[in-house]
Amino acid sequence: MRNLDEHTITDAVLARHERAGSARLKEIAGSLIRHLHEFAREVNLTEGEWEQGIRFLTEVGHATNDKRQEFILLSDTLGLSMLVVAMANRKPAGCTEATVFGPFFVEDAPESGNGADLANGASGVPCFVSGNIKGPGGEPVHHARIDVWQADGEGRYDVQYSDDGEHRARGTLYSRSDGSHNFRSIVGEPYTIPYDGPVGRMLDALGRHAWRPAHLHFMITAPGYERLITQVFREGDPYLDSDAVFGVRSSLIAPWVPHDAGVAPDGSRINTPFCTLNFDFVLNRAS
Amino acid sequence: MRNLDEHTITDAVLARHERAGSARLKEIAGSLIRHLHEFAREVNLTEGEWEQGIRFLTEVGHATNDKRQEFILLSDTLGLSMLVVAMANRKPAGCTEATVFGPFFVEDAPESGNGADLANGASGVPCFVSGNIKGPGGEPVHHARIDVWQADGEGRYDVQYSDDGEHRARGTLYSRSDGSHNFRSIVGEPYTIPYDGPVGRMLDALGRHAWRPAHLHFMITAPGYERLITQVFREGDPYLDSDAVFGVRSSLIAPWVPHDAGVAPDGSRINTPFCTLNFDFVLNRAS
Ligand SMILES: [Fe+2]
Ligand SMILES: [Fe+2]
Repeated sequence: MRNLDEHTITDAVLARHERAGSARLKEIAGSLIRHLHEFAREVNLTEGEWEQGIRFLTEVGHATNDKRQEFILLSDTLGLSMLVVAMANRKPAGCTEATVFGPFFVEDAPESGNGADLANGASGVPCFVSGNIKGPGGEPVHHARIDVWQADGEGRYDVQYSDDGEHRARGTLYSRSDGSHNFRSIVGEPYTIPYDGPVGRMLDALGRHAWRPAHLHFMITAPGYERLITQVFREGDPYLDSDAVFGVRSSLIAPWVPHDAGVAPDGSRINTPFCTLNFDFVLNRAS
Repeated sequence: MRNLDEHTITDAVLARHERAGSARLKEIAGSLIRHLHEFAREVNLTEGEWEQGIRFLTEVGHATNDKRQEFILLSDTLGLSMLVVAMANRKPAGCTEATVFGPFFVEDAPESGNGADLANGASGVPCFVSGNIKGPGGEPVHHARIDVWQADGEGRYDVQYSDDGEHRARGTLYSRSDGSHNFRSIVGEPYTIPYDGPVGRMLDALGRHAWRPAHLHFMITAPGYERLITQVFREGDPYLDSDAVFGVRSSLIAPWVPHDAGVAPDGSRINTPFCTLNFDFVLNRAS
């Protein structure tokens, strides 16, 4: 435990964990430390570079608050989030694929009935969304809880505007007894992940853009089924092949169908152009 | 760039860095991402564990402020700091070894002349420190800048007390033309690194203690020589073989020699017991 060099230190650190409170924590800490050390040795990390790293993490920590999670952005942009999601969601064929959760979900969004308008003043082309929630055998899943959240026509989430406490373009509803649901909202546009902070500066230095293709977030929960956290991506979006957080799946791409002003899907008259999106979700059975 | 799984995602992330601003940044980011992904795959990191990790880093970020650097504590306790120091300081035989910098250095400590008392009210047994600064050939190094900082008799640094702006048990002096220097201070005791925060909870969960053996920090700077950042450790300390930050080197251990009340090394009368420490430093020539 004295005179440790860059080779002997790794085992010396791991030897301290003999009395770890849990075998799993010991395994995770051990693997993380081995890979962290191996990284530093591989690139021969200098003291100045280490200092820059400490400064970067400090900035990420200070950019993180109740409204912004810069560590999740960091994990997302390094591909770690999607990697963990992929490992955790190996589903049978036919089930809807999962993708990254992202940092913009809000716990206490309002509950709405089917057919309600979730926009609540968010800007953008009106959009009528419908679909069915099914089980793996095609059976309807009724009273599934459907949390939906999205950016607006400017590519921004409500929480990115000044805080007036209003929820816009987000809400919670439940599937009907036949598994169907529908709601009105607006068409969300592609957006850059927040890049006025340290993660944005990192992307810049790495020559990467911060764009995500337009998408609609869903979290669907029903007893007896695995919770599904996913996104539906807009067909034709220019960023489908360069998503800043690596979340696109072909099976999650769908058309937002444009319509002229006239009669909306709910039978009402609408005097501006609008879109419709129909997308079905197949939940995996809980194990 | 679509349908990435836990295996294909790593190369997909690295492929984004073709236009990185610097080859070195690209190398470092690439190695870090590969090892981070390999870690997550190796332990099959779950979504819940990933969330715990995000929460932990968020807490580390929020515990870090002007007075406390929890990310450095984290790096120190994971052995990363000492690993980087070891790689950066492969010195010729005979040169004084480097060790970790730690989080308690303060930029604007006061300058003192040789012989001054740096304690400025810090508690502890009086200690008279002396030594020579030399080059690799034994030549005296004059006007070397010597920054010294230490914990007090309670094992705490001045910055860990309520902020009255006073510097205690720290200061800056310069070697004389013969390379010698001396100052008065107090005997610093062993201490726990701050463990009322997330890093402390981590150590606890891993079954590790937070103690460092008693030591005195030095940073020595002189034109034509490599800057030396090191610590002198107290012979006989119970934590020499289990330093929480893995920094002990045998060559840096020295006796704090106890003396009865009487005549101090500076010729003054002292009516309490005191210690003396004599330690010479050999600087490496700048390359
Ligand atoms: Fe999003
Ligand atoms: Fe220290």
